[in-house]
Parts: sequence; C-alpha cells; structure tokens
Amino acid sequence: MRTEIATLGEFGLIKHLTEGIALNHSSGIYGIGDDAAVLQYPAGKQVLVTTDLLMEGVHFDLTYVPLKHLGYKAAVVNFSDIYAMNGTPRQITVSLALSKRFSVEDMEELYAGIRLACRAYNVDIVGGDTSSSLTGLAISITCIGEADKADVVYRHTAQPNDLICVSGDLGAAYMGLQLLEREKAVLRGNDNVQPDFAGKEYLLERQLKPEARRDIIDALRDAHVRPTSMIDISDGLSSELLHICTQSKTGCRVYEEHIPIDYQTAVMAEEFNMNLSTCALNGGEDYELLFTVALADKEKVEALDNIKLIGYITPPDQGCMLITRDDHHEFTLKAQGWNGMQQ
Amino acid sequence: MRTEIATLGEFGLIKHLTEGIALNHSSGIYGIGDDAAVLQYPAGKQVLVTTDLLMEGVHFDLTYVPLKHLGYKAAVVNFSDIYAMNGTPRQITVSLALSKRFSVEDMEELYAGIRLACRAYNVDIVGGDTSSSLTGLAISITCIGEADKADVVYRHTAQPNDLICVSGDLGAAYMGLQLLEREKAVLRGNDNVQPDFAGKEYLLERQLKPEARRDIIDALRDAHVRPTSMIDISDGLSSELLHICTQSKTGCRVYEEHIPIDYQTAVMAEEFNMNLSTCALNGGEDYELLFTVALADKEKVEALDNIKLIGYITPPDQGCMLITRDDHHEFTLKAQGWNGMQQ
Repeated sequence: MRTEIATLGEFGLIKHLTEGIALNHSSGIYGIGDDAAVLQYPAGKQVLVTTDLLMEGVHFDLTYVPLKHLGYKAAVVNFSDIYAMNGTPRQITVSLALSKRFSVEDMEELYAGIRLACRAYNVDIVGGDTSSSLTGLAISITCIGEADKADVVYRHTAQPNDLICVSGDLGAAYMGLQLLEREKAVLRGNDNVQPDFAGKEYLLERQLKPEARRDIIDALRDAHVRPTSMIDISDGLSSELLHICTQSKTGCRVYEEHIPIDYQTAVMAEEFNMNLSTCALNGGEDYELLFTVALADKEKVEALDNIKLIGYITPPDQGCMLITRDDHHEFTLKAQGWNGMQQ
Repeated sequence: MRTEIATLGEFGLIKHLTEGIALNHSSGIYGIGDDAAVLQYPAGKQVLVTTDLLMEGVHFDLTYVPLKHLGYKAAVVNFSDIYAMNGTPRQITVSLALSKRFSVEDMEELYAGIRLACRAYNVDIVGGDTSSSLTGLAISITCIGEADKADVVYRHTAQPNDLICVSGDLGAAYMGLQLLEREKAVLRGNDNVQPDFAGKEYLLERQLKPEARRDIIDALRDAHVRPTSMIDISDGLSSELLHICTQSKTGCRVYEEHIPIDYQTAVMAEEFNMNLSTCALNGGEDYELLFTVALADKEKVEALDNIKLIGYITPPDQGCMLITRDDHHEFTLKAQGWNGMQQ
C-alpha cells in the first residue's frame, strides 16, 4: 500500500505523524503545533542542546536500512550526545525533508522508529516539521536535555594520571556495516537471494539499532564516580580520544590489549582480512562512552560491569600513544587509519 | 579563489568557520566544541525551541540567492518564530550538509551571513556541524529563545471579538521571488545581460534579506499590549490566520481593503497581471507578525506604527470570511489560492 504525500499535504502529513503525541516531562510546557516549543526547566538545571543532520546516501543507505531502524537510530545518536555530557535527554524536535519517492507509509515507519526510541529513553517529541527535497531524505533532529550544573562533564577537563575508560565494545557497528555492504554488492541484480546473517546478529544490531549508554551514566552515578571528561564514540576511539586530549591539552597512553572487542567482531575481521584493532580504533558508530576518571576512582570503576580501563592521560609533551599488544611498540594515535597497523 | 573542503576536512572546516565565535549571553555556558551546548536560563524563564530545515532547490535557488543572503535569511526566519511566541532569540545551532560543488569560500560567505544576522539580533552561535551531501546544500538551524512565563503568546488563545492585526505589509517577498524567477528565465543562456531591478529594490530586499519583527514585539511591550494570540507569516496570511482560528476554535472576518500592501508590490502585480490580494493573502515569506488583541487595546494598537487592523475574531459557526473591497462580498478563506479572487 502506498499513499502519496500529496494526498495529505505537508501540514496534513505532520499532523498525521504526530497525532496523539503527548508530553510526559514536567519540563515540557507546549509541544508540536506552534511557532516554537515551550519548555521550563527547574532553577539550577542546565539545558543541553545537540543537533544532528543526516543525509541519505551519506549517513544512511536505504537499500539495507529499514526506515523504522533509521528513525530509531537517528533519535538514539542524539540521546547519546546528551548522555556524553552526563545529562538526561528530555525533548527532541524532528525535521524531515523528503523527495516524491517516499510515501505516507514510509514516513509512518520512520516515525514509528523515532517514537519507539523516545518511549525507550523517556523523551518527548516537542516539534515536528516536514518539507520537500529534490532528491533523497534528510533528517534533522535536535535533542534538548538537562543536568545539574555540578554534573555536566565536558571534553576539555581531563588531567594527567586520569584513567581512560570505555564502555561496551568497539568496532562491531563498523563490521556490521561491512557485512551489509558486502551483501548489497553480492545481491545486486538478484532480489531472490536472502543474505545469511546467522551468527552475525550482534554486528547487524550494533549497526542498525544502536543504543545510547544510559545504563553506564546511571551506574557511574550510583557508584559516586563523576568522570573528569567524557565524549561519545561516533567517529572511532582514536578520533574521540584525540578530541579529549587536544581540548584538555594532554597526551595519553592507550594499550591495544585492553581495547574491548566482541568475539563476533574478531571473527568478522578475520573473514574480511581486516586488522581488528584498526576497526576498533577507527570504525565509528559505536555510540559507546569514552571517559576519564580520577586515579582515586580506579577500584570503583573496576567493580562496574561493561567498563574497561584502556590507558591513562599523560602530560601533553608525551604525545598520544598506542602501545601494541604483541611487541609493546609505541605508535602515535591518528584520527583516521592508524599507520602502524594498517595493512 | 576556490579552496576545496577536503583540504580542511570536516572538523577543520567547522573549526575554521566558527573561529572566534564568543558567547555574549549569560544564559550561554558552553558553546561549540563539545557533544552538546550548555545553557542556563534564570528561574521563571521559559525556553523556546524552534527549528528549520532548508533544502537547496526547494527552499532556495542559488542561481539568484547570494550565499551570504541565504545565511542571513536562514537565521532570521528562526528568530521570527521566537518573536512570534513573544520571546527573545538567544542561541542558534547550525548544521550544514554540502556537496563537493561547494568550496571553503562558499561556506565562509554563508557563515558571514549567519554571523551578521546573529550580530544584528544579538544571538549567539552555540553549535555548529558540517557534513557531506550527495547533491546540493542543506541547512538546519535550531534557535533557542526565552520568555517570561506570563509573556508567552500561543496560536490557540484568540477569542471572539479580538481584533486581528498584521505588521508591515504583505506580498512583497512573493513578488520579489516572481521578479527573480522572471529574470532567471530571461537570462538563461545569456550571462552578459544585467537584470534591471531599478525601482524594485524593496521587493528584492523582502525576498532576499527579510527581517524579523523584533521592533513590533518591543513596541507592543512598551505600549503594554499583550497579544491574545500570535503567529509569524511564513506561508501567507490566509494559511496563518486559519492556523490561529482552527487552533483557537474560532472564526474570523478579514477586510480585503485593510490588508497592508506596499506600492511596489501593487505595481509589480499589475505588471505580472496577477491578482494583488491573492499575492498578499497567499504569497508567503513575509515574516510579518499576525496577532490578535483584546478589543480594549484597540486605541493603543492604532497609535502604533506599522500595525494594521484587518478584521476581528468571530464565534466558530460564522466561519473564516474575507470581505471584498469593491462589492463587500464574503468569501471563505482558503489556505492555498483564494477561489473567489483567483483569475
């Protein structure tokens, strides 16, 4: 079934898509339907604002990404940015621009994913807009969150001797992307062959339906550990760690052997004949949290699940170094590709 | 001179474009350079959030819109939404997606326009991001503003007998667009002919460099007039008035003879053989304010410059009516094209 957007019109479409959306947070005073959303945060709360513009063909490929997953991911990556400030996401606005290729049903799927993510993370949709595009789909989501002033964690506040921590594992989303790209190439021109992803579900899920690490933020708070700096890993561990070090004016030492990597990621890298550490360092789209903690918090952090210590912060003159697993060589971390390990 | 974006990279480009941007408002705690901007509004202030996604070929045509003007307009239309809530714009975030066609110098021009608008309206840029697009330019701007709780004016709060007011004049931006489109068609294939826009400067300025009506918001405040409802006119008077009436559950009576139209707009409509009132009712992109005031405020509003009373709000069963100038016929207002006057 395909209903043309024109049958509803732009106002009709957004009304249809946002029907029944209610505000759950007390900080949301007025949502969709006016010139602006109206919010009111309690005194002492700081307001966090992050925004993301996703373009078809650059940030997503609809030949293998279902629209519902895309909506879910587009929302979650914004939540991840708010958690990376040690805050709580509260509201989003959603702007869509779509070509004639898309139907009302397509947009229902996309919105279903956005709504699912909002329910899962307890976030309200307070603004929505749709318009046309000449080619493809563009999705712009802005997320507003809150944090107590004393809780906000920046990138530029790491100190020498702080421990470098990372949540979950790295490189899986990147391997999931490689897997989907391979299947796309294999299946081109042959619609009847179903790809066999058995045993690789984790990689696909990491690519298609990432989650934001609210659980890590909660666990750190419960353990009374306040990170000294934090960032979410969207562009790869190397790139994000260099952001922290550059902005904090420090160096770092990271140990290859401590970088957390899932078994399926390792199997897939072997199959693709790719260097595993390169994937984990530069793969991107992990949406894990990279943060530093004071040395005094070492035992508290070690007691938490799903957090790995991978190194420590150094004075700036020591550079940003990776220590290899096998021969303990030192290489300078680079944001894209890591020369010492690239094949 | 043309510098490829690739020479700077995406991180380098945004750093280059946002260099030297400072925060002027006390509500801005941290701006560009982290996962999210950090704001803190005083207790009692409500936070207003509006967002706009502009796509090349749909919302702007770079064959006649200079990039600096585009940047200015992209920012101002967001400010207009905040003023339409009776608020004050404070911060914006800017996301750009651009194809390889664009150079570093192009983006400098665009940003120069955005910065100019921000200076003129005293707004801070607190977030910026650039990425790629397969074709064309996409601009997503989110604006955050503030208002005292008691000051926020919605669309859904008009009452029968309230007077309907509009600022400035209508239809000029639409005629400016027609003018530019005509010149584009005339000049196609002939780059040496310079279009003659003498005497039509106002129409071009309304299309290419619109302003948000901060002055009207200030004047109303100074006169102690609080609108009972308000919206900014981006899609045409008819469409916006129907938004107010639908959301307020009222009707309205608007008098054609009172709709404010500039002399140049009238001359141009004649030249193009277009119905003038249709242009004023449905043209769009005026970025004037449409608002209602209590009958008791009539004299105060009449004493203000640049505000015209064009009709009044009625009970819902009386419908949304336009009364013609010449024969005082009544027609039902429609959002797109007005059947009674279309030729």
